[in-house]
Amino acid sequence: MLRHVQPAAVFMGRLPYGADLLAALNQVCIEKEITLGRIEAIGAVQKAALMYYNQDKQEYETLKFDRHLEIVALMGNVSLKDNKPMVHGHIVLADKEGNAFGGHLAPGTIIFACEVTIQVFQGTLFEREREPQTGLPLWKETR
Amino acid sequence: MLRHVQPAAVFMGRLPYGADLLAALNQVCIEKEITLGRIEAIGAVQKAALMYYNQDKQEYETLKFDRHLEIVALMGNVSLKDNKPMVHGHIVLADKEGNAFGGHLAPGTIIFACEVTIQVFQGTLFEREREPQTGLPLWKETR
Amino acid sequence: MLRHVQPAAVFMGRLPYGADLLAALNQVCIEKEITLGRIEAIGAVQKAALMYYNQDKQEYETLKFDRHLEIVALMGNVSLKDNKPMVHGHIVLADKEGNAFGGHLAPGTIIFACEVTIQVFQGTLFEREREPQTGLPLWKETR
Repeated sequence: MLRHVQPAAVFMGRLPYGADLLAALNQVCIEKEITLGRIEAIGAVQKAALMYYNQDKQEYETLKFDRHLEIVALMGNVSLKDNKPMVHGHIVLADKEGNAFGGHLAPGTIIFACEVTIQVFQGTLFEREREPQTGLPLWKETR
Repeated sequence: MLRHVQPAAVFMGRLPYGADLLAALNQVCIEKEITLGRIEAIGAVQKAALMYYNQDKQEYETLKFDRHLEIVALMGNVSLKDNKPMVHGHIVLADKEGNAFGGHLAPGTIIFACEVTIQVFQGTLFEREREPQTGLPLWKETR
Repeated sequence: MLRHVQPAAVFMGRLPYGADLLAALNQVCIEKEITLGRIEAIGAVQKAALMYYNQDKQEYETLKFDRHLEIVALMGNVSLKDNKPMVHGHIVLADKEGNAFGGHLAPGTIIFACEVTIQVFQGTLFEREREPQTGLPLWKETR
């Protein structure tokens, strides 16, 4: 179910202090016209909001962390949903004792500092639509 | 001890619901004839099996997580063992409270949804064989 | 605030048993003349030292883990500080029960086994200097 894509541009840099991390990543993709790629980032946040997908109820549950945390690893991809670039990111955070937390990156995660690398790919577009078995917006199987 | 390799194809897509994650990754590498590369994935699992390497006893201990978890970050590589592609993956998982767990990806980790990127490399083959100091199947030093 | 860079060489291999992980990564970058790139690694450590950045006090606090841990995910970048390559890495570790810990990779993390991939980029140099709002050595905004 994997498709062959071609490496294209690479973007690297940091995101602004105080910005919403997910919104900032989506904004970069719109500005740079990135429709397919992989994203990674490290840094720190002032607070975080994650989501956990309840597989039985087929709905997301939100988790809030109102404290300063390191971004130990943000791993994600860019593809299309409703014809717009959509970043799907999962994130590992760590607190001042080093305890790690993680989940689906949600709006409400506020950047303290964030260093991002985006590797853009070209090829067939990847579009998300609701997949019935999981209830998730997954990539369509059509080519 | 690092060698220069060349970027080749990139594969991106999702793995099927209900499949064994490690077996599915190995299967992709066999089908696509991938012998060297890096792998990453995010998603969710229905249950997980990890391994922790006991450095004193030089043996793996298995950890089972019989619950639904997010795949927050899967990071791994592909190389050869016994002349066949072998995926070596480490994985970070998170539960419904956001608590993170991790270890060596073992058979028995069952996919709920999984989005994978594989960047294939070309160059000298990387072959694993038992390395005496650690007891692990590591890459041979021979050029 | 992201800049376009070009993919260049890729290096892959393992780091030596008993070496300091951060020092070994920096050494590779000096030897291979890597001034910009992304780094990832998996493996295991004999012990670890992490840092957590106290955002209020604007200073790092050190966390020591004097036990054997898996390197579940090391994610980082290479850029320049004081005209020398500097690896900035964040790391997720896991203990024998699978509990995950994370933070900024600090000196004092000793390798048991470590498999590394470095993707080198070319383009405008990224140089770090103290950024007043965060107190961190971040990339300069100057083109």
